[in-house]
Amino acid sequence: MEREVALKLVAEQITEHRYVHTLGVMETAIQLAKRFGDDPKKAELAAIFHDYAKFRPKEEMKKIIKEQKMPEQLLVHNSELWHAPVGAFLVEKEVGITDRDVLSAIKYHTSGRPNMTLLEKIIYVADYIEPGRHFPGVDEVRVLAENDLDRALIKSIQNTIMFLLKKNQAVYPETIQTYNFFILKGGRFT
Amino acid sequence: MEREVALKLVAEQITEHRYVHTLGVMETAIQLAKRFGDDPKKAELAAIFHDYAKFRPKEEMKKIIKEQKMPEQLLVHNSELWHAPVGAFLVEKEVGITDRDVLSAIKYHTSGRPNMTLLEKIIYVADYIEPGRHFPGVDEVRVLAENDLDRALIKSIQNTIMFLLKKNQAVYPETIQTYNFFILKGGRFT
Repeated sequence: MEREVALKLVAEQITEHRYVHTLGVMETAIQLAKRFGDDPKKAELAAIFHDYAKFRPKEEMKKIIKEQKMPEQLLVHNSELWHAPVGAFLVEKEVGITDRDVLSAIKYHTSGRPNMTLLEKIIYVADYIEPGRHFPGVDEVRVLAENDLDRALIKSIQNTIMFLLKKNQAVYPETIQTYNFFILKGGRFT
Repeated sequence: MEREVALKLVAEQITEHRYVHTLGVMETAIQLAKRFGDDPKKAELAAIFHDYAKFRPKEEMKKIIKEQKMPEQLLVHNSELWHAPVGAFLVEKEVGITDRDVLSAIKYHTSGRPNMTLLEKIIYVADYIEPGRHFPGVDEVRVLAENDLDRALIKSIQNTIMFLLKKNQAVYPETIQTYNFFILKGGRFT
C-alpha cells in the first residue's frame, strides 16, 4: 500500500495530535528498520496503522476482544492496552492488510511479548522514542537505539513498568513476561 | 512451641546476622499481629522460622522444589526466592510444625501471592520493616504499617519490584500478580 493512501486511511481514524505522533513513529520506524536490517516498507506500514483503533469506543473494543477470543485478562487491565490487538484485527478486516509481520507489530506495540520479532521491537521502540515524545528517560532510550535495539527495548519496558508502579497502576502480565524474557534468556542490557 | 525452643532450633540453621534479623522480624510481627487482630503466637512462630532454609545448599533446595512439585518457574528465577517455599516444607518435615497459617506465611514471605492471608501479610511486612532494615523507602513503609497493613504491603512490593528493575533483575510472576491483585481488586493505596 502506498504511503499516501495509508496515511489518508489512518487520518480518518485518529485525532490530529495522534496523526502527528504517527508521522513521528513512521519516520523513526523506517530509520530503525534501515539501521537494524528489517524491511523499511513493512516498518512504514505497521507504524502508520499502529494506533488505528486508538479512538474506537471502549464498548466496540470490548466486544471485539470477547468475540475474537483475545485474552480475557485484557478486560481487567487498563483499556489503553486494548487498541493494539483490536487495531491489528481491524487493520486486517477494514483495511485489508494481511502481512502477519505488520499485523503482529501492531498487535504487540503496547504490551510487548516474549520473543518479539524484529519488526515488533522496531515499532515498540519507535512508538516510545519518536521526536514528539518528551518524558523522563526517553533520551537515554534514543541513545541506546542508535546501536542496540534490544537494550533500547528493555530500557523502555523498564521505564514503562516503573511509571505504572509509581502511579499505582497494574502491570499487564505479558509486559512483565517480556521484561523477564530478556533478563532471563540472554537479552543484553546495561 | 515455646519461643526459646523455636529460637534454639532456628539458631542452628542460620548465621548470627540472620538470627538478629529473625529476632527483629519476630518482635515486629508480634506487634503487627496485636495491632491488626491476628494471633501473636502464630506470628511469633512464623517469624522465627521464616528464614529457616535460607542457608541450605542450592542443590538441596532445587531437589526439594522438583520432588515436591513446587512451581518449576522458581528454578529459572533468582534462588533468593527458593528458601521461602522450601522453608515451609522443611519446617513441617524437620520441626514438626503443622499449622497451615504459619506454614503459608513462611511459604509466601518472599514472593507474596494474590489474596494473601492476614498472617502472610504480617510476616511479609515484618520482614521488610524490622528495625535492622535500612534501605530507601523503608521508613515510609514503617509509617504506613502504623495503621494500614495493606498499604504497607503494597508499598513494600512496589519498592521491591522497582529495586529489581533498577538492578536489571527478573520479577517473579507471583510478585507482580500480588501487586496487580491489590491494584485491580480494591486494595487501598496512596
